Amino acid sequence: MSEPVRIGLLGRGTVGGAFAELIEARSGAVEAAIGRRPELAGVLTRQGGDFDEILADSDVVVELIGGTEPARRFVLESLRAGRPVVTANKQLLAQHGEELFDAAREAGVQLRFEAAVAGVIPIVRVIQESFGTTEIAKVFGIVNGTTNFILSEMAASGAPYEEVLARAKGLGYAEADPSDDVSGADAAAKMAILARLAFHTPVTLDEVSYEGIEQVEPDDLAYAKELGLSLKLLGVAERREAGISVRVFPCFLYGGHPLAPVSGPFNAVMVEAPEITEVTMSGPGAGGVQTASAVLGDLVSILNGDAPVHETRGRLPVVADVTSSFYLHLAVVDRPGVLAAVAQVLGDQDVSVKSVVQRGAGEDARLVMVIHECLESRFEAALAAIEKLDVLRARPRAIRVIEEEFV
Amino acid sequence: MSEPVRIGLLGRGTVGGAFAELIEARSGAVEAAIGRRPELAGVLTRQGGDFDEILADSDVVVELIGGTEPARRFVLESLRAGRPVVTANKQLLAQHGEELFDAAREAGVQLRFEAAVAGVIPIVRVIQESFGTTEIAKVFGIVNGTTNFILSEMAASGAPYEEVLARAKGLGYAEADPSDDVSGADAAAKMAILARLAFHTPVTLDEVSYEGIEQVEPDDLAYAKELGLSLKLLGVAERREAGISVRVFPCFLYGGHPLAPVSGPFNAVMVEAPEITEVTMSGPGAGGVQTASAVLGDLVSILNGDAPVHETRGRLPVVADVTSSFYLHLAVVDRPGVLAAVAQVLGDQDVSVKSVVQRGAGEDARLVMVIHECLESRFEAALAAIEKLDVLRARPRAIRVIEEEFV
Repeated sequence: MSEPVRIGLLGRGTVGGAFAELIEARSGAVEAAIGRRPELAGVLTRQGGDFDEILADSDVVVELIGGTEPARRFVLESLRAGRPVVTANKQLLAQHGEELFDAAREAGVQLRFEAAVAGVIPIVRVIQESFGTTEIAKVFGIVNGTTNFILSEMAASGAPYEEVLARAKGLGYAEADPSDDVSGADAAAKMAILARLAFHTPVTLDEVSYEGIEQVEPDDLAYAKELGLSLKLLGVAERREAGISVRVFPCFLYGGHPLAPVSGPFNAVMVEAPEITEVTMSGPGAGGVQTASAVLGDLVSILNGDAPVHETRGRLPVVADVTSSFYLHLAVVDRPGVLAAVAQVLGDQDVSVKSVVQRGAGEDARLVMVIHECLESRFEAALAAIEKLDVLRARPRAIRVIEEEFV
Repeated sequence: MSEPVRIGLLGRGTVGGAFAELIEARSGAVEAAIGRRPELAGVLTRQGGDFDEILADSDVVVELIGGTEPARRFVLESLRAGRPVVTANKQLLAQHGEELFDAAREAGVQLRFEAAVAGVIPIVRVIQESFGTTEIAKVFGIVNGTTNFILSEMAASGAPYEEVLARAKGLGYAEADPSDDVSGADAAAKMAILARLAFHTPVTLDEVSYEGIEQVEPDDLAYAKELGLSLKLLGVAERREAGISVRVFPCFLYGGHPLAPVSGPFNAVMVEAPEITEVTMSGPGAGGVQTASAVLGDLVSILNGDAPVHETRGRLPVVADVTSSFYLHLAVVDRPGVLAAVAQVLGDQDVSVKSVVQRGAGEDARLVMVIHECLESRFEAALAAIEKLDVLRARPRAIRVIEEEFV
């Protein structure tokens, strides 16, 4: 019988614990797949274990500590010692990817990280391997389950953000400190990784602009429902004329959009390219055993054969000012000439209105507009000018919208 | 500079032609990915080319001829000559998979076939690699774009099958002889392949039972719409108590089902397992460049590193008699006691009714029932007994339904 494969496990939190159980439960299948029995060489926890000893005793290292330090040091030392590494650590890859990939290439060992993005959805493998030579135009989707759960619940119940957030915490869909999720920072790290893989260019977290969902109001969702729209926190990485753009923002989708029905704590990612049209993948975005299952998939792949480490093929600039379509919601005073005044300001910035609806009257008068795709800087300038008009009763609310098939 | 990779291309039809163009267009990306420039060593067409010469001159063989012979002989000879092979040939794999995989393993070369199932959706890679050690419970979905287009159009327009089929031919979504698609035989070949990969057991085409869409009537779709259901031709491979079942059949889905919104010539496949919950993948099911793109992905993977050839891990029996839920539509005479008579027959077979609606009156009286999950043999026995009742005005129509959340 062959020698067992010895796995050094760093971290035994939710995912680490689930992984330790899964590797035990599936050891027969792992042995069938790779011809060797898996065995934990050692587990590093906050309570105990010595990294150097575990490293010396391992064939492969699985990093599930999270955060950047000491995870970064452990991964680098493992790679330099010739150990392939599996990690689920999105922050580490989004902030120090280049250094880690370089170290893996130099050592000639694999570095795999399927579980870092979109949970059990194998988007990393699909982009790197299936679409590795595809001219990907756009990768986008819902890559944070907490915020998707909150937005789904707000839309379904009409309850305000704070109330739904509390519910999400109670159900375990939001952490005690949910700021990374609700601010869009977590999604931004994932999009940095996906953009790097899709476009073969270095992208770091600080190049990703993001907005979260803290400002979303039940009112926005009510209007959206009426218009047949749903609101999602989208991560979008796409080729633009001058380079690429990588962003996270709340966005309205029309009812027929493939991402519109994705609700609750699910993730979904779409890949677009001329030669593939579009491929959509969805599934649970998190969960201990689901994430552990993605880690196990990576581990088996490493043991099954060699594969190249991600390498950039050039450097594409990250463009800040891109074009978008917007939904614009203005609470206005109810008197003649208001629409003309707003339209004048938009026209001054070459911002063109696709549709406009006047709603309510008196104290409740509103203008709800959809703005054609335009440079965001132009729209922002127009918005600043609208805020100065004396016809507004409240701050304008603008939310991006994917215009396609939007009526 | 490294030597180019020489590719022997067998077949230059729609996919072969698109592949020849794609490899040219993406040669820079291929070189970036594998460090070698791709080059066509030769192309075998009906008009010319010599297989032995092409083989001798190739590093890798791409088989896009289709059909079982001479494709089988070419693939076997290529493998035995130590050439890795990429094929898009579902019939070949569904009928002769075991022989081909054995030959590849013996020669120690890869045999890849992403393009054989679900077009550009990388379901083969995901099942084999990402979920290679996952205890998959069920793989199912829409794996034939022609029939999905026809059913979508019938549902949208109310037009009868023959008329929509003619339209599909005009648009290039159906072939001149569509029998393989509409009979479910094409989907059955794909499900044989997916079942083999998911359950690590030999499955051949003749073990897959299938029904097509030729019998579907506009009336069925009209009722379905009214009930919030959509009709899809599903391929379903699942673990059952006594083994596995692999089948293709038209099936009603409730509106919230992830496959319900998949319309037109698209494919979508779901994978279910306890440790992953469910993952859904969708995209275009066919098209020359899309299929060629899947072939290119396989080619690059072969050149990027070694990977194991599919191997069975045992033999699970294919179970014929499984449980299903049904929608049952009976045109009946309008008189008291009809429901009682039908209910009696169902009860005699232990078949239990979930809901029943009486519709119409007189010449148009109907009973529309949903039957709880039961052994199909029991349901068929009940159906045979119902047909003998003197209360029917037409043959009963039964269609399977995925009961979950069905009301």
